[in-house]
Amino acid sequence: MKKSALQQARSAYQPKLPQVLKGAVKVVEGRPTQSVADQEEIKKLFPNTYGLPELTFEVAEGGAQGKPLNVGVILSGGQAPGGHNVISGLFDGIKSVNPDSRLYGFLMGPGGFVDHNYIELTSEIIDDYRNTGGFDIIGSGRTKLEKKEQFDKGLEILKELGITALVIIGGDDSNTNAAVLAEYYKQIGAGVQVIGCPKTIDGDLKNDLIETSFGFDTATKVYSEVIGNIQRDCNSAKKYYHFIKLMGRSASHIALECALQTQPTYCIISEEVEEKNLSLNDIIENIAQVIVARANAGMNYGTILIPEGLIEFIPAMKRLIAQLNDLLAEKAAEFGAIDNAAEQRAWIIEHLDKENAEAYASLPEGVARQLSLDRDPHGNVQVSLIETEKLLSEMVGKRLRALKEEGAYTGKFSALHHFFGYEGRCADPSNFDADYCYSLGFNAAQLIEAGVTGYMSSVRKLTLPAAEWVAGGIPVTMMMNMERRHGEMKPVIQKALVKLDGKPFLKFAEQRQNWASGVEFIYPGPIQYFGPTEVCDPTTMTLKYEHE
Amino acid sequence: MKKSALQQARSAYQPKLPQVLKGAVKVVEGRPTQSVADQEEIKKLFPNTYGLPELTFEVAEGGAQGKPLNVGVILSGGQAPGGHNVISGLFDGIKSVNPDSRLYGFLMGPGGFVDHNYIELTSEIIDDYRNTGGFDIIGSGRTKLEKKEQFDKGLEILKELGITALVIIGGDDSNTNAAVLAEYYKQIGAGVQVIGCPKTIDGDLKNDLIETSFGFDTATKVYSEVIGNIQRDCNSAKKYYHFIKLMGRSASHIALECALQTQPTYCIISEEVEEKNLSLNDIIENIAQVIVARANAGMNYGTILIPEGLIEFIPAMKRLIAQLNDLLAEKAAEFGAIDNAAEQRAWIIEHLDKENAEAYASLPEGVARQLSLDRDPHGNVQVSLIETEKLLSEMVGKRLRALKEEGAYTGKFSALHHFFGYEGRCADPSNFDADYCYSLGFNAAQLIEAGVTGYMSSVRKLTLPAAEWVAGGIPVTMMMNMERRHGEMKPVIQKALVKLDGKPFLKFAEQRQNWASGVEFIYPGPIQYFGPTEVCDPTTMTLKYEHE
Repeated sequence: MKKSALQQARSAYQPKLPQVLKGAVKVVEGRPTQSVADQEEIKKLFPNTYGLPELTFEVAEGGAQGKPLNVGVILSGGQAPGGHNVISGLFDGIKSVNPDSRLYGFLMGPGGFVDHNYIELTSEIIDDYRNTGGFDIIGSGRTKLEKKEQFDKGLEILKELGITALVIIGGDDSNTNAAVLAEYYKQIGAGVQVIGCPKTIDGDLKNDLIETSFGFDTATKVYSEVIGNIQRDCNSAKKYYHFIKLMGRSASHIALECALQTQPTYCIISEEVEEKNLSLNDIIENIAQVIVARANAGMNYGTILIPEGLIEFIPAMKRLIAQLNDLLAEKAAEFGAIDNAAEQRAWIIEHLDKENAEAYASLPEGVARQLSLDRDPHGNVQVSLIETEKLLSEMVGKRLRALKEEGAYTGKFSALHHFFGYEGRCADPSNFDADYCYSLGFNAAQLIEAGVTGYMSSVRKLTLPAAEWVAGGIPVTMMMNMERRHGEMKPVIQKALVKLDGKPFLKFAEQRQNWASGVEFIYPGPIQYFGPTEVCDPTTMTLKYEHE
Repeated sequence: MKKSALQQARSAYQPKLPQVLKGAVKVVEGRPTQSVADQEEIKKLFPNTYGLPELTFEVAEGGAQGKPLNVGVILSGGQAPGGHNVISGLFDGIKSVNPDSRLYGFLMGPGGFVDHNYIELTSEIIDDYRNTGGFDIIGSGRTKLEKKEQFDKGLEILKELGITALVIIGGDDSNTNAAVLAEYYKQIGAGVQVIGCPKTIDGDLKNDLIETSFGFDTATKVYSEVIGNIQRDCNSAKKYYHFIKLMGRSASHIALECALQTQPTYCIISEEVEEKNLSLNDIIENIAQVIVARANAGMNYGTILIPEGLIEFIPAMKRLIAQLNDLLAEKAAEFGAIDNAAEQRAWIIEHLDKENAEAYASLPEGVARQLSLDRDPHGNVQVSLIETEKLLSEMVGKRLRALKEEGAYTGKFSALHHFFGYEGRCADPSNFDADYCYSLGFNAAQLIEAGVTGYMSSVRKLTLPAAEWVAGGIPVTMMMNMERRHGEMKPVIQKALVKLDGKPFLKFAEQRQNWASGVEFIYPGPIQYFGPTEVCDPTTMTLKYEHE
């Protein structure tokens, strides 16, 4: 691997640890915990790991060397900046317990665990990946670890390698599965602890004790960098509206954080759309009115941020998609026999109920076609394929032409489109993510040494300097509730959506009128690793406001 | 303007100047110059400004204070990082000649000059924009300054403000127009000097004496940052081919520079496509064969860089587009009467000559339709609207399916698409661009003080430390040749395309087979402003190799 000049310089960075993790620790048990909802069902499903106490580490005197630990680690799901630092922290953590400890990495995600593909992570390998982005040290994958056969198959290789603890680095689903695995291994007396680590750029794996998932800080900084650059371009050329879609399958944390960092002309928050029961046309009208007002003030340019998951938060679209899924599954043959696009469209409109037919008819042809033709293997509409940024700009353009005919709009409207996602998931971690991830991994080693299972590594008080961060463990069951998934009720970690009464959203709501009516753009610039602390070290506005 | 933490810290940066510009200078005249071609015609067109000598500044003793200078400045064309530093360098330069000098900025490009829209640039304004990206200090525009009436109209405001020198910051076209303006003002005895500054992220305004245009360094670093991040993602997930289109309307310097910085799996260079007379199908076949070979080695992922201007460099596409333009202009009514897409397609194929008909028939439906329907006000195909990255991946996918049926390909092919352009044009300038731009502006002030006109500000030896840079002026006519534009022969600055026998391309060509057959990705990371010099200060690989 040929390293860039930056990576060479950056490899020397020593991530900051909470003071408490720098020497021997003692474990302080809190009170027994409860799941956030559905306590009875979840208790029944996790008889061995439900109700465990919250754990906090405190500085201990002396501290004898522990026994060597043999640990396995898995990267699960989409990439997030800092994964390599979780692993290097874990490596240094188990080595600090005993230098003969060993770390094994399962390759390409949970699939490598089930299929027994692994490497031993030596210090030579680890050193090559410190403070770098990506998950390429062992790769990641999306295999879901949820079946008993997988657990048993994986246990074979754990036994063979003498591994007694498994660290799963993943999002809400992967940590849910980690909890199920922990329960199962406990139940069968496998002698293997399972520890989770909170990863996702989406920022939707958080609660009172997991303040943020790792990667959210770096990814939103990269997106804010390029949004800021586009905004400066927009404000220089003064002739385009940039429609910018941001990754984040469900919650709008990324869009909200980027909006707080860059102060765009307009930003859609999916959770607000749902709460206010807005239709697609309502959204279009809102944007069009902002554009009309700006045109009246002589400004025919601006930026509009769009969360990737928007479509599924529009109640009317959700209903339309649900009916389309049923209709096209039920009458697949009849629909399949029509080979003309116009007739297909007419057939669909005829077979939908009135409200859905109207919603469908209002969609631009391309999107309507996509909804009826591009279907996944289960026959469902592939919402993620919809280019929402183009859909919105096309509909806004149409609405503005109508307003122009009425004499209500006199501006010019030219749109450009962007989608940012892959640009941020594997960036080199910011100082914050480098420190946080390293601490999460190091802390996981302490949880292993403490002998617990079914816990998530938790590092808190993240707006304080790293030395003052609080470290410990949170029982995963504590974050769970029962939700319907693929027609079945399942215990899952509750997804954290944007709270409309939360500080970050309120701060946004308080300022957005100014952003819409003027040019309040902020240009954050690229992540800096070597500059003054006020440039390099602050974490997200979301965390800042949540902890104010 | 609310500044980000980075911008606040960065505003204190003092751009480096060549040693020679730090005090009084004397002007050293070289020999009279000649245009690069068509000397007789160009001499005839520029009787007053042809054949001027190349100028170099050298350190002078003492140096009395000059008279106050009244200078106007125009930003012309697309944004490029560092424009604000050219202006702040120019400001500091004329103030160093005499503190009573004044600088006026014409608003929103050459249009502001013609229409008398301007502001005086005071030190308060200038200080707010030092070391920042964007052209928003006075805005830019694409009005072409080429008519006598515009020159005369502009002269009125120059006279009114007592401006005796005009600095035009622009690309090849804008500098061509600056030379025409210089000649005209000289001819009529207007008493106004005109000085150009070489700007464009495209990197195609360069020659022996203008080593690079400003902005190319920063823009390619931003693109390389996000390409590197995508490559790390690609190498972590190991399941996608990323087709990445890069801005640059004509030459492929940006794609080549980004390839040298990031070592992608594949990179298309338009100039090579033209030279080798490759068809679109040849390009597809080349990419498909790389993908087949990688699949055989177990790799179903990679990155492919595509220069924005590609289509117009494919000789067969150029011929097809030319015939389409003629055909659809000639038989507009007949074609317009057909309202069915399939029949339109058939009609076009029937009316094209055999070779063009085949090329047209081989295009995916969407692109073919775009070629026949999306036409500019002059009736020409809008090549820039073609999403080349999707066109290529669609055609590659089709070719791979055919190869799979023949049993010649067993891999999986999933493609993702990106287009980067607006992300880099207004980034905060790198140290190199901050220094280079400031020096270009400061140097322009010295050219004004030297009383010359029709010169371009030239700062050379750019791979040496800034203190050792050579400063001076190059007669714009020296870079000119005659070219056909809109049916007329015109004197224009020769566009610098990628030279296939130049070092940068040869370095690329020497390594690309390795990049294609393995994973040789480099991840440059974001521009750093405060770190070690080997991270913050180096300029492009293109310049490095050109000067080796």
